[in-house]
Amino acid sequence: MGSSNFLGGHSRKHKVTIVGSGNWGSTIAKIIAENTREHTDVFEENVQMWVYEEDVTIPKESKHYNESTADTPQKLTEVINKYHENVKYLPGVALPPNIVANPSLNDAVQNSTILIFNLPHQFIRKVCEGIRGEIMPFARGISCIKGVNVTDDGISLFSEWIGDDLGIYCGALSGANIASEIAQEKWSETTIAYDPPPMDSRAPTPRNASPNPDAAGEIPEIQHLDARGRKSKTKLTPLPIEYPPLDHNCFRMLFHRPYFHVQMVSDVAGVSLGGALKNIVALAAGFVDGRGWGDNAKAAIMRIGLMEMVKFGKEFFSETVRTGTFTESSAGVADLITSSSGGRNFRCARKAVEKGVSVQDVEREDLNGQKLQGTSTAHEVNSFLKARGLEAEYPLFTAVDGILRGEKKVDDIPALVSDT
Amino acid sequence: MGSSNFLGGHSRKHKVTIVGSGNWGSTIAKIIAENTREHTDVFEENVQMWVYEEDVTIPKESKHYNESTADTPQKLTEVINKYHENVKYLPGVALPPNIVANPSLNDAVQNSTILIFNLPHQFIRKVCEGIRGEIMPFARGISCIKGVNVTDDGISLFSEWIGDDLGIYCGALSGANIASEIAQEKWSETTIAYDPPPMDSRAPTPRNASPNPDAAGEIPEIQHLDARGRKSKTKLTPLPIEYPPLDHNCFRMLFHRPYFHVQMVSDVAGVSLGGALKNIVALAAGFVDGRGWGDNAKAAIMRIGLMEMVKFGKEFFSETVRTGTFTESSAGVADLITSSSGGRNFRCARKAVEKGVSVQDVEREDLNGQKLQGTSTAHEVNSFLKARGLEAEYPLFTAVDGILRGEKKVDDIPALVSDT
Repeated sequence: MGSSNFLGGHSRKHKVTIVGSGNWGSTIAKIIAENTREHTDVFEENVQMWVYEEDVTIPKESKHYNESTADTPQKLTEVINKYHENVKYLPGVALPPNIVANPSLNDAVQNSTILIFNLPHQFIRKVCEGIRGEIMPFARGISCIKGVNVTDDGISLFSEWIGDDLGIYCGALSGANIASEIAQEKWSETTIAYDPPPMDSRAPTPRNASPNPDAAGEIPEIQHLDARGRKSKTKLTPLPIEYPPLDHNCFRMLFHRPYFHVQMVSDVAGVSLGGALKNIVALAAGFVDGRGWGDNAKAAIMRIGLMEMVKFGKEFFSETVRTGTFTESSAGVADLITSSSGGRNFRCARKAVEKGVSVQDVEREDLNGQKLQGTSTAHEVNSFLKARGLEAEYPLFTAVDGILRGEKKVDDIPALVSDT
Repeated sequence: MGSSNFLGGHSRKHKVTIVGSGNWGSTIAKIIAENTREHTDVFEENVQMWVYEEDVTIPKESKHYNESTADTPQKLTEVINKYHENVKYLPGVALPPNIVANPSLNDAVQNSTILIFNLPHQFIRKVCEGIRGEIMPFARGISCIKGVNVTDDGISLFSEWIGDDLGIYCGALSGANIASEIAQEKWSETTIAYDPPPMDSRAPTPRNASPNPDAAGEIPEIQHLDARGRKSKTKLTPLPIEYPPLDHNCFRMLFHRPYFHVQMVSDVAGVSLGGALKNIVALAAGFVDGRGWGDNAKAAIMRIGLMEMVKFGKEFFSETVRTGTFTESSAGVADLITSSSGGRNFRCARKAVEKGVSVQDVEREDLNGQKLQGTSTAHEVNSFLKARGLEAEYPLFTAVDGILRGEKKVDDIPALVSDT
C-alpha cells in the first residue's frame, strides 16, 4: 500500500514504542515492526519495546536452544536483540530485527510520538508514574489492555487512566485476538477505537524554532464522561505540523497486516467494555455447555449476553457508545464468539459444571492460584449494578454472579432470562 | 401465565393445524399442543397435524418397539394417534395426546384459524393448491420453513408464497433451532416475525348472522416489495370479532415454552433471509476451520458474514428489514453461531478442506446424494448478485461461491475480504 501520497511532505517521522513485552505485547510488536519497515516514509523503522528485565534461559521451544548453554541465565533484552525472539513469552516466533528491546522504560519512550501500551492492567499506574513528563507532550497512545475498571463508584477505561496520567490522548485496541494464533500469522481481525477531539490546526514542534508560536496555544480539551456522568478534562497538546497526521489512516497503516485486519472506529468505551463484559457471557456459555444443553442454548446465551452488553454500554456511556461496536465489530460479537468457543473462562465454567464443583475450585486446581478475568468482572459488575438497584435489568449478568456465589443454579438460567 | 384477562370475552377459540410432520414439524406440534392445553380459553385443545400417510414399522429407538411386531407395517397416522409418538421422524419423544394426526390435508385444515407450515419448501406449492378455498378466509399462517427463494429475477419469501397462494397473511418463524435438541426440551430461543397490516375493525364471522355486515367490507390490503421493488397485493379478510385477536401476544402464547423462548418481531424478510444466508457463512466458517486457522479466524468470518447479511437485507428489502434482526435476534446472529459451530454445512465444508476434496465430493460421499442447503444458496445468491453487477460488494459470499466452483482457494479469503 503506498502511503506517501496522502502523508507526504512531512519532515519528521513517527517513532513507535511498545510498552510491554509479554505474549500479546511481543505479538503486537511483531506486527508493528513489520509495518514500520514497509512505511519508512511515515514511521521510523526501528521500534522500541520496553522489556521488564529478567534473567532467562533458552527453552526447548526456541530454535536457539542449545543443550550446552541451556542452564546459563542471560538477560532477556540481550536475548531478544541477539536472537530476535522473545524466548520467554513468545518462544518459537521470529521477531523482525527492527524491534529493539530496551530494559529502560524512560529511554524506550524518549522522542516517541506513538506509545502502545500492552501490559497487565495492574502495572498501568506505576508505568505511567515512571514516564510522566518524560514523553513527548503531543504523543498519542493506544491501549491494547483488555477490559475496564469497575468499582461501585463507576467504570473507568484503562485508556483513560493512561491518557489522564500522561496528559495525552489514548485510544484502545481490542478484538477476537488470541495472541498465539496471531503470532503464527493465522488470519484475524481487530478493532481500534481512536477518537481524539478535533484539532483545526497543529502546532509546530516545540523543539524547533517556530514561525508561528501562537499556534501552539490552541489547545483543545478532551472531555469524557465516566459512569457517573463526571467530566474529566485532559489538556491535549496538538501534534506539530512536521509530523504526518496521527489519524485513522495512520493507525491502520501501523497495525493492519495481511493476516491482521484492522477496523478503525471512534467508540473507545464500547471497544473497551466489549473486552470486559464478554468474559461474563463466556462463563454463562460454559455453564450451559457443561450442562449438555447443546448448540441452541449456547447461541441463545451468547445472544442474550450480547444484548446485555449493548444495554450496559448504552446505559452508562450513553454519549459515546454505539450499538454496532458490540453487534458488528471484532471487539464485540467476534471476541464474544471466540471467548465463548474455547476461551479460558468458558472452559473453566464448563468443567466446573461437568464435575459438579465450583468455578473457584477449578481456578484453584487448574490455574495455579490465578483468577479468571470473568469471575472478578462478574462480581464487580454485579456490585456496580446492585449499588444502582439495576440487577434485575441484567438477568444474565446477575445469574452468572449468582451461580458463581452458589446462590443460583445453571438450571435457573432459562427462567431468569425469560423476558429478555 | 393467565391469558383470560387480556383475551377474555371471546365466544370462539382458535383452532390450530400443523401442516407437516417431519422432525421439525413434530417438534413444533409438541410445543403447540403443550400450549393449547394450557390456554384452553384461547385455543381449542386438540391440534391437527397433517401427516403424509405412509406405512411404517416401529424402530428400536421407540419405547413402543416390540420384537414380535417389528416387521408389521402400520399406518403412520394410526401409530401417532395410538402411541403419541412419531416413530418415523421423531422416535423416542413423547408427544402430547392432544395432537391429532390426520392423513387428509383438507380435513386437517377445516375451520382452523391458525395454520403452521412446517414442510420441505418444495412441497409448498402443491400443498397450497390442495387447500386453496378450503381454509377459513381469515386464517393466519406461520411458516417454519427456513430460507428464501432466490432466482436471478428476485428473492421471494416462502411465507409470501403461502400468503399469496392462500390469500391469507403468513408470518415466519426461524432461530437457532436444532429440532432434536428442542424435542428433548433443551432450552433454546426462536424468533417469530408477524406483521399483518393494521386493521381497525374486525368483521363478525361470516358463518353467523352479522349485526353489521358492512364491517366485512373493510378489507385492508397488504403490500410487500420483492427484490425488484414489485408490489404484490393480497386482499386480507379481517378476523371476526368473536375470536381473540391474532396478535403478537397470541402467537407468543402459542409458541413460548419454558424451554423454547419466543421473541416476536415484525421483520419477516429479515427473519427469512437470516435462515438462508447463514448457510453461506457456515460454509466459509467450515473452510477456515478446516484450514486450521483457529478461533480468531472463525469469529472473523462470522462477523464479516453477518455484515454481508445485513447489507444484503438492507439493499434488497430496504423498506422493511431491520439491522437488529440480523445482529440481535435468534434468527440472525444466534442461528449463524449455531450453524457455524456444528451445522451440516459447516461440517461438510471443514471436512472438504481437511481432506483436500471438493464440498461436492463430501456431499456425494456423506449425504447419500442429498445436497447441502448452503451450496445451492451460495450459487443462487451469487447468480442474483452477478446479474446486478454487485458481486464485488459481497466479497465473502462471492468467495464462498468461487471456492465451491474451484475458482478460488480458501487461502484467498483474507485478501478478498480485506476491505470489509
